[in-house]
Amino acid sequence: MASEISSVVSKLQMVSTSDHSSIVSMNLFVALLCACIIIGHLLEENRWMNESITALLIGLTTGVVILLFSGGKSSHILVFSEDLFFIYLLPPIIFNAGFQVKKKQFFVNFMTIMLFGAIGTLISCAIITFGATQIFKKLDIGPLELGDYLAIGAIFAATDSVCTLQVLNQDETPLLYSLVFGEGVVNDATSVVLFNAIQSFDLNQIDPSIALHFLGNFLYLFISSTMLGVLTGLLSAYIIKKLYIGRHSTDREVALMMLMAYLSYMLAELCYLSGILTVFFCGIVMSHYTWHNVTEGSRITTKHSFATLSFVAEIFIFLYVGMDALDIEKWKFVSDSPGTSVAASSVLLGLILLGRAAFVFPLSFISNLAKKSTSEKISFRQQVIIWWAGLMRGAVSMALAYNQFTMSGHTSLRCNAIMITSTITVVLFSTVVFGLMTKPLIRLLLPHNPLPKSIGTTTDPSTPKSVIVPLLESAQDSEVDIGGNEVHRPSSIRALLATPTHTVHRLWRKFDDAFMRPVFGGRGFVPVEPGSPTERNGHQWH
Amino acid sequence: MASEISSVVSKLQMVSTSDHSSIVSMNLFVALLCACIIIGHLLEENRWMNESITALLIGLTTGVVILLFSGGKSSHILVFSEDLFFIYLLPPIIFNAGFQVKKKQFFVNFMTIMLFGAIGTLISCAIITFGATQIFKKLDIGPLELGDYLAIGAIFAATDSVCTLQVLNQDETPLLYSLVFGEGVVNDATSVVLFNAIQSFDLNQIDPSIALHFLGNFLYLFISSTMLGVLTGLLSAYIIKKLYIGRHSTDREVALMMLMAYLSYMLAELCYLSGILTVFFCGIVMSHYTWHNVTEGSRITTKHSFATLSFVAEIFIFLYVGMDALDIEKWKFVSDSPGTSVAASSVLLGLILLGRAAFVFPLSFISNLAKKSTSEKISFRQQVIIWWAGLMRGAVSMALAYNQFTMSGHTSLRCNAIMITSTITVVLFSTVVFGLMTKPLIRLLLPHNPLPKSIGTTTDPSTPKSVIVPLLESAQDSEVDIGGNEVHRPSSIRALLATPTHTVHRLWRKFDDAFMRPVFGGRGFVPVEPGSPTERNGHQWH
Repeated sequence: MASEISSVVSKLQMVSTSDHSSIVSMNLFVALLCACIIIGHLLEENRWMNESITALLIGLTTGVVILLFSGGKSSHILVFSEDLFFIYLLPPIIFNAGFQVKKKQFFVNFMTIMLFGAIGTLISCAIITFGATQIFKKLDIGPLELGDYLAIGAIFAATDSVCTLQVLNQDETPLLYSLVFGEGVVNDATSVVLFNAIQSFDLNQIDPSIALHFLGNFLYLFISSTMLGVLTGLLSAYIIKKLYIGRHSTDREVALMMLMAYLSYMLAELCYLSGILTVFFCGIVMSHYTWHNVTEGSRITTKHSFATLSFVAEIFIFLYVGMDALDIEKWKFVSDSPGTSVAASSVLLGLILLGRAAFVFPLSFISNLAKKSTSEKISFRQQVIIWWAGLMRGAVSMALAYNQFTMSGHTSLRCNAIMITSTITVVLFSTVVFGLMTKPLIRLLLPHNPLPKSIGTTTDPSTPKSVIVPLLESAQDSEVDIGGNEVHRPSSIRALLATPTHTVHRLWRKFDDAFMRPVFGGRGFVPVEPGSPTERNGHQWH
Repeated sequence: MASEISSVVSKLQMVSTSDHSSIVSMNLFVALLCACIIIGHLLEENRWMNESITALLIGLTTGVVILLFSGGKSSHILVFSEDLFFIYLLPPIIFNAGFQVKKKQFFVNFMTIMLFGAIGTLISCAIITFGATQIFKKLDIGPLELGDYLAIGAIFAATDSVCTLQVLNQDETPLLYSLVFGEGVVNDATSVVLFNAIQSFDLNQIDPSIALHFLGNFLYLFISSTMLGVLTGLLSAYIIKKLYIGRHSTDREVALMMLMAYLSYMLAELCYLSGILTVFFCGIVMSHYTWHNVTEGSRITTKHSFATLSFVAEIFIFLYVGMDALDIEKWKFVSDSPGTSVAASSVLLGLILLGRAAFVFPLSFISNLAKKSTSEKISFRQQVIIWWAGLMRGAVSMALAYNQFTMSGHTSLRCNAIMITSTITVVLFSTVVFGLMTKPLIRLLLPHNPLPKSIGTTTDPSTPKSVIVPLLESAQDSEVDIGGNEVHRPSSIRALLATPTHTVHRLWRKFDDAFMRPVFGGRGFVPVEPGSPTERNGHQWH
């Protein structure tokens, strides 16, 4: 009888203690996240560090401690999981970026962003693939196949949008921020279409129609992902406006915004579209319409809680990457020939530098041809910063590398282990070294900050994001009709790039005021409490 | 070469499409959550329905649709997972309940709550175990052991705090709410200690010292869980006050509050304590100190976002339980003898009614002995409501039943399948029928609502929780010194129960003002923006 009872008891106890080791690791992770936030706060005044590097270093330190405690057997408590990253951590970050992005800056530079994101990524991918094929054969790495080389090109061509958010400040360098971050978002669509294209077409029969097919595919993916995001955003605005959800409960508004944003990402993944593009545009639409339809309390709550979720997810990612860097299983393969891994990492870093330079400078030149005034052009110094700020490789590269070179996190091939360790080295080196040097570089190259002094003092230069100012500004920005005094009579190549942006913007403003706002709400179309800070400038629309 | 590439491609594609079926089910779940929120909003005016029953019915409907589409093979997209429930869904609900609870009501009724939660649960568990042992032997159920009967007692003795939150309104019936909900929280500690006690002691040698050991264990668990929650809450208040986290970033404050609240729950689970008790007290301490130390924006954000998280988690649970109710694998066992399952469910429902009646009325009588004025006593009508409102069994019972009677969600024994289907029947019946009848019952038994008309009109009777009012009220409540005109000279049994509560409260207020507030902050100890709604009543403390 006693044994019966104890078996029941142990079964019932499992409810509260099931998988005790996972509870231990969750405790450790949550405690480390708290530590990162506090240390990040204390280092806020520091001009070199940022939150992501702090988290990365704390993660590395923890990895070392775990390695010592486990006697060199294990260095991480969780094997790197792509699902965790792509399904839970990435969506809030990209959504928040869309929600808080300066819409005017983004759409004015739309063509340049598309150039960088689509053509640039292709150039970079081709150079890295070609370079790796040529050089890795001379190093004693192992039997890598053509597919592996293509994968290497894709892994290292992708700019990490999460890192960009950390090193560039939207308030200080709005142009650079929108260019590099926008490129990172478009980038994702390019890589999805790149792999689909390689899969769909027989590469043995190369003829000109492939390029057209490729273009068609890219456009389909880009447009449908964008449309999905826009439609989900509009639906949320319509539902919240029509049903006046805030009448009964503020919670419902916030919950509905969060869930519909997440739904847009998951729907895109379901349809094999680019979830990153979708959730980014969903964020833009939600900040333009939905956000203005909710109650004042919900507005403050969503603004802060989206930013907080994104902030926590970012720290989580860097902590995670830091802890996974000491992947002892892979480092053991490398330990007998450390030179090979160092050489491979150096080659990859060199190719990344080269591949990015090979498209940033030429494409900036093309983009500048379309700009009339000197102030609109991308100066050489700005080009250097764009080149530099996009060099960081982060969790996306890690996830892709683990997917390509391991079977659910494990590998027994030396060449695969070398590729994993090289990726880890590149990610750590680029994030820490390039990341640390970005802020000093910006101060060096752009000493005359064009930002008004008042904002410059309220938002500390080292603050990754200031929450209230950007959103309010973006709302104001988007309302300023830029088509007013800047309508150029286009000529030659300038026409090709400048006309669509400006004309489309003017037409859009008219369309927005005449048709969209009455249906979907937005600034000035809801009864507002007088004196609320967000609505003080909105009365011009009544 | 083409095959190589396609293998790469399929590998790399896995990154965005890994586990496509899980993406399908997540889409379905998120879409259903949105539907529940919208339908819940539309049914808000309805005087019978509440959000949880809506979610339960939507879940059931979806289960039927999936069952039809899959040709009777599968009815749910996710097998019920205790981890999901206990690690992710329960903590935000209980934390928010602590965060928004009326502290005065809770602590004034502390002794009664402890009586109900500790002694009451033991009585109820004993009656259900004894009754099931006697009656189930006569039904043709199968070879259930003593351990199974003890587990049945534990499964059905636990009041579901989540259901209570849904049917009782803190603003309308504060006494009943604090009694039934508080009982549900203490309940959790009782069941943990119950199982530990059975495991630790040899039941064959029953002697009086067991009762003492049991009491000691319960006190240890209760006190250490509470202290852990209080200490984590105080630590968060101290860190945020001392480092003035809000200086740089509002996100950090919100993130730190969320993470430290979650950390308290996980630490309790790590130490085999009661996470529910811990996170509940952490919520109380955070609303008393930490919440007043953060910036105005963070205050609004935390208030709404904790409520939203809790709201979404509640709907998620009911949706989940509804979808899992058509567990076809278990129902198939039952289909050849439907009478047995119906009989078992009826017996269990009867025992639940009996077991609860057996402690609510006697313990209320004991509790009333300690009250001097008639208005403080629990009237017979209120006792009936307490008895009725605690009858609902929810996700906790489901989780315990799945844990006891299945091996990771599956079973091949008929008696186990019958127990699962009976649990499902009891949960559905009690939630829907008892839940639907609670509001009409309260209106019937307590027609003269003691609530002032003004609040009664702003918060709809069917609103599960109104967010802003409770928190502000609780903040005011807790500041009102109840020790003022209610100091009784205690005598006889009244002394035993009344003295500690009132004296402790007065001493606590002095201690709080003299030592705690200067260190940990709290209302009136931070510079506040004049005119902010939450601080308008706070100037008395300057």
